[in-house]
Amino acid sequence: MGFFDEQLPKEKVFRDPIHHYIVVDNQIILDLINTPEFQRLRRVKQLGTSALIFHGAEHSRFGHSLGVYEITRRMCNHFQRNYPSQDAGDGLWNDRERPVALCAALLHDLGHGPFSHTFEHIFHTDHETITQRLITSPETNINQILRRVSPDFPAQVASVIDHTYANPQVVQMISSQIDADRMDYLQRDAFYTGTNYGKFDLDRVLKVMRPVQNGIAFEIAGMHAVEDYILSRLQMYLQVYFHPVSRSLEVILAHQLKRAKWLYQHPNDYQPEFLPQLLMPFFNGRFSLEDYLTLDDGVLTTYFTHWRHASDDILADLADRFLNRRPFKSVLYDEAAATRLPKLRDLITTAGFNADYYTATNSSYKLPYDVYNPQAQTPQSQIELVQPNGELVELSQVSTLVASVAGKEAGDMRFFFPKEMLEQHQDIEIFQPIYDEFQSYLHNNHLI
Amino acid sequence: MGFFDEQLPKEKVFRDPIHHYIVVDNQIILDLINTPEFQRLRRVKQLGTSALIFHGAEHSRFGHSLGVYEITRRMCNHFQRNYPSQDAGDGLWNDRERPVALCAALLHDLGHGPFSHTFEHIFHTDHETITQRLITSPETNINQILRRVSPDFPAQVASVIDHTYANPQVVQMISSQIDADRMDYLQRDAFYTGTNYGKFDLDRVLKVMRPVQNGIAFEIAGMHAVEDYILSRLQMYLQVYFHPVSRSLEVILAHQLKRAKWLYQHPNDYQPEFLPQLLMPFFNGRFSLEDYLTLDDGVLTTYFTHWRHASDDILADLADRFLNRRPFKSVLYDEAAATRLPKLRDLITTAGFNADYYTATNSSYKLPYDVYNPQAQTPQSQIELVQPNGELVELSQVSTLVASVAGKEAGDMRFFFPKEMLEQHQDIEIFQPIYDEFQSYLHNNHLI
Amino acid sequence: MGFFDEQLPKEKVFRDPIHHYIVVDNQIILDLINTPEFQRLRRVKQLGTSALIFHGAEHSRFGHSLGVYEITRRMCNHFQRNYPSQDAGDGLWNDRERPVALCAALLHDLGHGPFSHTFEHIFHTDHETITQRLITSPETNINQILRRVSPDFPAQVASVIDHTYANPQVVQMISSQIDADRMDYLQRDAFYTGTNYGKFDLDRVLKVMRPVQNGIAFEIAGMHAVEDYILSRLQMYLQVYFHPVSRSLEVILAHQLKRAKWLYQHPNDYQPEFLPQLLMPFFNGRFSLEDYLTLDDGVLTTYFTHWRHASDDILADLADRFLNRRPFKSVLYDEAAATRLPKLRDLITTAGFNADYYTATNSSYKLPYDVYNPQAQTPQSQIELVQPNGELVELSQVSTLVASVAGKEAGDMRFFFPKEMLEQHQDIEIFQPIYDEFQSYLHNNHLI
Amino acid sequence: MGFFDEQLPKEKVFRDPIHHYIVVDNQIILDLINTPEFQRLRRVKQLGTSALIFHGAEHSRFGHSLGVYEITRRMCNHFQRNYPSQDAGDGLWNDRERPVALCAALLHDLGHGPFSHTFEHIFHTDHETITQRLITSPETNINQILRRVSPDFPAQVASVIDHTYANPQVVQMISSQIDADRMDYLQRDAFYTGTNYGKFDLDRVLKVMRPVQNGIAFEIAGMHAVEDYILSRLQMYLQVYFHPVSRSLEVILAHQLKRAKWLYQHPNDYQPEFLPQLLMPFFNGRFSLEDYLTLDDGVLTTYFTHWRHASDDILADLADRFLNRRPFKSVLYDEAAATRLPKLRDLITTAGFNADYYTATNSSYKLPYDVYNPQAQTPQSQIELVQPNGELVELSQVSTLVASVAGKEAGDMRFFFPKEMLEQHQDIEIFQPIYDEFQSYLHNNHLI
Repeated sequence: MGFFDEQLPKEKVFRDPIHHYIVVDNQIILDLINTPEFQRLRRVKQLGTSALIFHGAEHSRFGHSLGVYEITRRMCNHFQRNYPSQDAGDGLWNDRERPVALCAALLHDLGHGPFSHTFEHIFHTDHETITQRLITSPETNINQILRRVSPDFPAQVASVIDHTYANPQVVQMISSQIDADRMDYLQRDAFYTGTNYGKFDLDRVLKVMRPVQNGIAFEIAGMHAVEDYILSRLQMYLQVYFHPVSRSLEVILAHQLKRAKWLYQHPNDYQPEFLPQLLMPFFNGRFSLEDYLTLDDGVLTTYFTHWRHASDDILADLADRFLNRRPFKSVLYDEAAATRLPKLRDLITTAGFNADYYTATNSSYKLPYDVYNPQAQTPQSQIELVQPNGELVELSQVSTLVASVAGKEAGDMRFFFPKEMLEQHQDIEIFQPIYDEFQSYLHNNHLI
Repeated sequence: MGFFDEQLPKEKVFRDPIHHYIVVDNQIILDLINTPEFQRLRRVKQLGTSALIFHGAEHSRFGHSLGVYEITRRMCNHFQRNYPSQDAGDGLWNDRERPVALCAALLHDLGHGPFSHTFEHIFHTDHETITQRLITSPETNINQILRRVSPDFPAQVASVIDHTYANPQVVQMISSQIDADRMDYLQRDAFYTGTNYGKFDLDRVLKVMRPVQNGIAFEIAGMHAVEDYILSRLQMYLQVYFHPVSRSLEVILAHQLKRAKWLYQHPNDYQPEFLPQLLMPFFNGRFSLEDYLTLDDGVLTTYFTHWRHASDDILADLADRFLNRRPFKSVLYDEAAATRLPKLRDLITTAGFNADYYTATNSSYKLPYDVYNPQAQTPQSQIELVQPNGELVELSQVSTLVASVAGKEAGDMRFFFPKEMLEQHQDIEIFQPIYDEFQSYLHNNHLI
Repeated sequence: MGFFDEQLPKEKVFRDPIHHYIVVDNQIILDLINTPEFQRLRRVKQLGTSALIFHGAEHSRFGHSLGVYEITRRMCNHFQRNYPSQDAGDGLWNDRERPVALCAALLHDLGHGPFSHTFEHIFHTDHETITQRLITSPETNINQILRRVSPDFPAQVASVIDHTYANPQVVQMISSQIDADRMDYLQRDAFYTGTNYGKFDLDRVLKVMRPVQNGIAFEIAGMHAVEDYILSRLQMYLQVYFHPVSRSLEVILAHQLKRAKWLYQHPNDYQPEFLPQLLMPFFNGRFSLEDYLTLDDGVLTTYFTHWRHASDDILADLADRFLNRRPFKSVLYDEAAATRLPKLRDLITTAGFNADYYTATNSSYKLPYDVYNPQAQTPQSQIELVQPNGELVELSQVSTLVASVAGKEAGDMRFFFPKEMLEQHQDIEIFQPIYDEFQSYLHNNHLI
Repeated sequence: MGFFDEQLPKEKVFRDPIHHYIVVDNQIILDLINTPEFQRLRRVKQLGTSALIFHGAEHSRFGHSLGVYEITRRMCNHFQRNYPSQDAGDGLWNDRERPVALCAALLHDLGHGPFSHTFEHIFHTDHETITQRLITSPETNINQILRRVSPDFPAQVASVIDHTYANPQVVQMISSQIDADRMDYLQRDAFYTGTNYGKFDLDRVLKVMRPVQNGIAFEIAGMHAVEDYILSRLQMYLQVYFHPVSRSLEVILAHQLKRAKWLYQHPNDYQPEFLPQLLMPFFNGRFSLEDYLTLDDGVLTTYFTHWRHASDDILADLADRFLNRRPFKSVLYDEAAATRLPKLRDLITTAGFNADYYTATNSSYKLPYDVYNPQAQTPQSQIELVQPNGELVELSQVSTLVASVAGKEAGDMRFFFPKEMLEQHQDIEIFQPIYDEFQSYLHNNHLI
């Protein structure tokens, strides 16, 4: 095989604050890292607006991608040492799967753009599709390097990311409820945010993993390490990823991009110098891979910097709020209280704000752990434990801790609005009655 | 007040691997630390037999006691900075409570003996009673130092440990579901065992604590830190404190002491040189505080060292199993399977073991979190959160995570027996049929 | 005083991965952090090109500035607890200095631009001057907040940064051989790069600091902590700040900006769309504070992104090398070998490279510790230790470790050139003889 | 070979707070760990009296021994992956050396007794000799297990510890200026003491190690990691191992044992119940391996506990000082001031103390790094770096940092005496003039 021919005589390392060292022992991997497509990931932050709440978390997708590769590499080593396949179909690990596993791990986030989810929502792009195109399009550097392994190797790598690769062990390494991707980002985001919540025992989880016939399972002796991972993940969602201020700034970001797009579609409303050259293909909805690769966080914030001085008041104000971190406020609400929302939007409009751009609702929920359900929209592989006699048992059958959280979504629904609505006893008396009425609907951070 | 008169002009510090520095700024505290009673805690391990499973965890109660003091000191500082009492009865913090809080924190474990719980069980001692006697008995060095504060100060300190002190804030600092004692030992035991499970965000919990009328509550914004603490505690119980091999070695330890006591009561069965001088008062059931203070881990293991060569086979064998770490094996069982236990004990007896000393059952359960129940045997103060408008709400009312674990005990029941019973195809054929029958009752580590 | 009037009733915190929490207990500090001038620091990386070598180190000057504030706050607390001034002139700490110390600490890096040193070198800006202008110019938000303390407070804060403030204790807190600035960045850069070298015992250093008549000294009992700091600093310089690949990318960055400036000055050589609008004031040498504040890392890299497609080959190639991390190679040389440099530049020119843009020399040296020398260009305050009887002694007099490194510069001189010059046996034979001759001057990474 | 036949199908792990996991993949290693001889190491503290200064550092030689094994295992893996021998004599790594390397690493401290160096000094035992006897004597469990590899395998393992094994790579792994033993104890002691000084980058050092013809060398690219190790080691010596209070308590310990021995030799001076049974063979100078293996820290402190009540005042007082941590005080002195020592001893005698037991001098010096010197008493292998072209260069030739500390001993000489000599204005006036004269010889912790 072409991959193993390019093994390096001596390992190379990248120093990494989470895994200490990322070990590269193959020329293919090294060449992939050195492509412009992969280097671009240095310019796309991992956590987007969360860095504005957790100021330490300014890290990019570059380090995360290396980390996912490194965890996958350790999985392969562990499987090869302890569970090497003797015969096809014995459910053990065949080390010939290593190249496709490592490359898919390294490249799984290649298609992420700046402020990924918000951008995708406004411009209808999809990072998974783009990742696969970057891997399979013959003109990319990535593709050319992958083809050194074999002509169909790029398609194999893409199929792992697409979950259609034949070997479920490889697919689950990269994508399952407990995979290299999630394990890296939990540790990494915990490290950079300075929270402890994401710190589970990665080494222990890796040690109790084992290949089985239908994918990857865990020794029952390591059940507590798996429980800890699940709780860590849940806490990171509740504490970091669903942080209300972070979601507030995402709202502002989205509305800013939405306004810019609207202005493009209504040319009478803006000055010609507004036109953000590198975003035009996305306003048009006709963009090439190259257009996409030109974007990064710096390009977008540079446009925001310009927009602060735009002639359109809404765009200028939203850009200023975003860059200078002036988030909207929010309150929790439930389905019953949702009937109040039109009234609140009316008050906000009366107070002088365009409710399309100055209010939003957002509901963020996470299933801590999901038992396999073939009827689900995107059925998740459930987590299974191997008992001493080799029989498998689904995690929530034996873990009372996991059983108590399984299937129950955690999260909340929030309504976002300008901070001005919370003012009291302000000097300009004119809006105070509106503010007072608005505030009368709130109690202990809830909409009542 | 006598305490504040002895403030040190410059703080002194003890370097501590968990809290980095223990800060002492009062001569009373320094003098307490330097007493023989307190220095003895260096010779009593914090985790007893767990050190035989987690080899890194050989730490003593000395460091833990300093740690509880340090956490309490930080609580006082936080309360005094942010919630200073203005008027009696305002439910805020009166810093005149600091002396009694600090001394109770430092001294709360003073009465622990070697292998505390096992020793107490066999010899009917009680470390809490002894702690209070060491504080209130006029002959101890501890008492003499405490009396420098005021004549009734020792009694006040003892009443905090006894939970009868008038100010519930002080009592809850030292003893509640989330107190300085538990917070220190979770962090400390996690550090030394090398597990991550006990690592919650201590600083964050301290920052969201606040004094309220009936004790201590937590700002609702810090709910996730409290959740994390509760889950960390639960995981430490399941992973470390209830570790089956640790409980197995406790069984051996207890049976060894039980056998020694039995031999003392049956003088014909041992050689005169057996008599362990320093344990005699405990065999007799008549011991002084001084007798108690003479004991430590080293004294007990020195007797075990001698007992390995005792003429009594059972004592000698149990001592050897303990010192050389040859634990009993165990299986899980439930109430239904418990009916099998007599049969298993019979087989073990047939195989040549005295079942009184070579088998045991142990059930270890922990309530992760307990809502206040005045009917409970030892009602626990529940955890309450302070909402933005100042109203209190009980934790499990707002935390779905805590609600899902509250009130459900976690743990297991195990049956312990000699490893020999699991042998297969051994050379000496005579016992193999007994072993085979024994093993036929076991399946996947469960008794069936 | 106006500052203490704005004390917050309850402390606020920022979670920080280095100091765990940054504690803010004053409205002035909070308002300064929320200014656009301060928020901009989120968009300027702390380590510039080093992030391309240590991929974890993508942190900004925002967190560092908070960290310097936090360390200074801890110094003030420590001084106030242990060394409070009783009488003017007693050489102890007067807590009325706290406001100026805290504000100077927070704002000391306010004037840093993107890729600071390189940018300054090409465009003749100076971040220290700009910091002072941002503090003292009446139109900035920063200035308006500072004036709430008193009309001359901005000037006082600026004078601390300028080292001209009357109280040397305050000046040395922010700027000396062992100050809050250096202590934060060593810890922070060590954390993010994933190196251990910068990790000295910050808590210990803070605990042994004390105010003295002429500034700040250290208890002799803490000498080893100071030694450790000095060695950590030295190692961070040698390992991280002077990393040859980082310096190579700085060379490429500088040459890229130099080329852009040259093109601006030679309008015939570029296409009109090249003109980087936000850099024009700097090409012109006439920029306002507002022009300066518009710049950040994202703005510059956005121009580099455009320049990759510039019609000027040199600019396009350098931009590509920088963005896609294709550093120059380098070799060490000494004064004797420097005579060879013209010959090497000739060979590089012959191989088709413009030596002005494709070669460079760089010498990076650091004095590990400097005894006070009034004749020096920028005399450094030396480090002094307080002996038990109160007498001061200069550090290198008592520390053999510091004595052995004091006054000896550590670092190296390097010559940078395109990697192509190191090729061997390449397919296109035409340049190989030139490459071979070039390589004949190199031996073990040295120019001979 | 017998060793590799006993490879475990699946790796076993020991959780370790320093290395996270100790990986055991061979039955021989597992069986060695389970011997009584190895389990005894749990009852011998690694740092002896240092635990009385650094209260966190109560760890035993058991964990350290596992740690040295683990580091050696990683070295073998690194060598085998990156530098596998192709031909005998090529200076690369032959993995058939792995068994002897691993066993020597695991067992290198087997002969350590309680309070090792002090005990050896008083009773003329030698832990290295005993280690070798425990390995080579046919009656030990250790020896019987090692013989499963081959009849001469025990002698081979012992010869590594004796530095006479033929392959210098193996010898240097276990014993050189930068070996697995030192690397483990520096990290481990730093962790448990809570100091940072010992924390060098172990992973990096391991990655830059490589086998060479005459032993082990380091890639020049990793020079800074080696420098950091050397400075860390130096700082641990100065800060932890040479801590004056720790040495003071060692003095008390030594004098206590010396007094006990003297009493044994002067039977008229003690009560018959004094006789410490398990120490008798050492008082006699005739002890068996079994006698030696019976000793541990607990046995000795149990005797100290008894001695506190001995009829001999000196023994009783010294035992009390040791157990209750009442150290002697000390001052620094140099050769010139040493002439004063007889005078000081006279004053101490006049004040009522037996100077043989209540004073001592101790000089502790460490060579930070030693260039090879064949004339030295115990010539140390020097550290060599591998240059890009393969040539070796001695470390201090290229590292200015190491050059500045090489060959210069660091440490001090101290004179120890009872704290009472420092009293001032005490109530009992009779000794005050003696104390005053004593104190007149001291200045800033120095003898003048």
